Amino acid sequence: MPSVPPQPALLHEVPIDLGERSYSIAIGTGLLGHADTWRGLPRAAAALVVSNDTVAPLYLAALRRALQPHYGVVHEVVLPDGEAHKDWPTLNRIFDALLAKGCDRKTVLFALGGGVVGDMTGFAAACYMRGVPFVQVPTTLLAQVDSSVGGKTAINHPLGKNMVGAFHQPVRVVCDLDTLATLPAREFSAGLAEIIKYGPIADMAFLDWIEAQLPALLRRDPAALARAVQRSCEIKAWVVGQDEREAGLRAILNFGHTFGHAIEAGLGYGEWLHGEAVGCGMVMAAELSRRLGLVDAALVDRLTRLIAAAGLPVDAPDLGEQRYLELMRVDKKAEAGDLRFVVIESPGRAGVRAAPEALVREVIAQCCKPAHR
Amino acid sequence: MPSVPPQPALLHEVPIDLGERSYSIAIGTGLLGHADTWRGLPRAAAALVVSNDTVAPLYLAALRRALQPHYGVVHEVVLPDGEAHKDWPTLNRIFDALLAKGCDRKTVLFALGGGVVGDMTGFAAACYMRGVPFVQVPTTLLAQVDSSVGGKTAINHPLGKNMVGAFHQPVRVVCDLDTLATLPAREFSAGLAEIIKYGPIADMAFLDWIEAQLPALLRRDPAALARAVQRSCEIKAWVVGQDEREAGLRAILNFGHTFGHAIEAGLGYGEWLHGEAVGCGMVMAAELSRRLGLVDAALVDRLTRLIAAAGLPVDAPDLGEQRYLELMRVDKKAEAGDLRFVVIESPGRAGVRAAPEALVREVIAQCCKPAHR
Repeated sequence: MPSVPPQPALLHEVPIDLGERSYSIAIGTGLLGHADTWRGLPRAAAALVVSNDTVAPLYLAALRRALQPHYGVVHEVVLPDGEAHKDWPTLNRIFDALLAKGCDRKTVLFALGGGVVGDMTGFAAACYMRGVPFVQVPTTLLAQVDSSVGGKTAINHPLGKNMVGAFHQPVRVVCDLDTLATLPAREFSAGLAEIIKYGPIADMAFLDWIEAQLPALLRRDPAALARAVQRSCEIKAWVVGQDEREAGLRAILNFGHTFGHAIEAGLGYGEWLHGEAVGCGMVMAAELSRRLGLVDAALVDRLTRLIAAAGLPVDAPDLGEQRYLELMRVDKKAEAGDLRFVVIESPGRAGVRAAPEALVREVIAQCCKPAHR
Repeated sequence: MPSVPPQPALLHEVPIDLGERSYSIAIGTGLLGHADTWRGLPRAAAALVVSNDTVAPLYLAALRRALQPHYGVVHEVVLPDGEAHKDWPTLNRIFDALLAKGCDRKTVLFALGGGVVGDMTGFAAACYMRGVPFVQVPTTLLAQVDSSVGGKTAINHPLGKNMVGAFHQPVRVVCDLDTLATLPAREFSAGLAEIIKYGPIADMAFLDWIEAQLPALLRRDPAALARAVQRSCEIKAWVVGQDEREAGLRAILNFGHTFGHAIEAGLGYGEWLHGEAVGCGMVMAAELSRRLGLVDAALVDRLTRLIAAAGLPVDAPDLGEQRYLELMRVDKKAEAGDLRFVVIESPGRAGVRAAPEALVREVIAQCCKPAHR
């Protein structure tokens, strides 16, 4: 007999206003295993849950049970865990399953896992029969505050991260905070990186709150987590709502990501977690902002201390200046070979700027020194 | 010294009204090699022309020369020709080239070739950095009247044709009728199939015109071709303009395609040309319409005779009834395993209907007999 599902609690709803592609994010505890959570989704004969071999043993059975009342049949695909598998052959396993099961163009896909599962499931949903609906069920802090909002989906290419993808909005996002209990400390810290990010780019009061609540967040207090996830999603939603296709403003969400992507690619995908690379990348981007005369050293120090206290690396790996520059030139923000970075224009406000190569080299040289602080 | 490019002539413009994704189709002679044809496209540092090893030797140099005044650099990728290569590994060669050349998100892709090149280039453009602009330069009759209009892009999966793709509108389509001069007779006939299609589903006066002008079309008279391409694009544009994402009406453009796709998949992609399969599939769909009591035998005979006169097969390959049914159940129109077909509701008007399996079996049995007429 299945155990009684926990009652949903702490429920927040963050609406994402994108016209006919609008959806909402549910944040709370006890959501995933409750049939009520899944009411009102597009009707279909079949659902397909995509997960990975770490998350599936923990939550797939509960999700399947909760979905069963809503769909005639609930299929599943369990992918190998990790950024290293965010590639075409692994993506193709989702298409193989959909076609082998005879899934039609109304089939609803569910992404149960972290950012990699979300990005791949979303991209599969964008492409399968040229587009089917999908639901994000992010089980990592990073995915809850970042990759599940905004509709960006992608896979990696050997020559660059997230180079092949689509904009495809989910029809709903369900952030069950209970799933964070099983998250390894390293991955939890990686999620904090993206939460911290929203401070310097959009909301310094939120940065104050994170500094004050860091101990509660680190012991995974549900109320603190609910607030952190909600505020992060609100800020991201506000940005994405103004610029769904990343024509301008949306790029500020990539604060720390240009350096971060270079670190990930340079070390080989999977060596550092995405959030770890972004944490270190934010230190570098803050330092670049300082050298451009935009912010003072106190803000760089404050951010660096918070990032370190969150359990994230703040010393950049020594890939060599030249390699950093090469890797950053394939960044999607680059134009005609010019390096462009998200910088802090002033505390709580970000923008995209081209930066002189010499300055970028100085930042790399400084941040690669273990004792740079 | 390059030869003087031919002056554009017979120029028709068909506007495709899709709001902010609107574009126009230019139809005429002497277009491809003329720099003026390529004015007013999105500005970018680089262009990438995708072609195949049949078309590239004929037209790539001329297109490159004509694009040169508009872009700093014009890259090229030449793919192997044929439907058998409309797959992920071949698609990935476009991404490899884009990334190896450091192409940014403003790069404009040009699809120079038939439907396969168009579908793959369009899908690559839809996915590269989550979307870059592309231009269709269809060089086959089929691509000019069908695959270059409507924004459908895709690759095949071993379990089904066009199963992985995207809706991505081109920023312009240029149909240079001169390129049809080098088209093999078999491919030319395949293109006529999609032109004939527009008669029974939308415009019986156009069907009369095609019957009368078939000799002129078969000798590739430019004025007749211009009219046939223009009217086909107009009808398709009218349908697509009302239903860009194929929620309903647009499905009528798939008249003959459910049977046709089964033939293509059953024989192995590339054995019959797409247009050949559609030609035969239209005979089957017309016969199904008759057995549903929608049209009379005279219309089926008339269509069958015209399709045969256009040089297309009208006898279905004997795959076995069961195999036909299996293959058609993975059609994108199928819902929960039910077979659905585009049928002629009355001459010049089409719709989508579920059909009883027994009736479909009768159609297959009849059309697979070599002497069924």
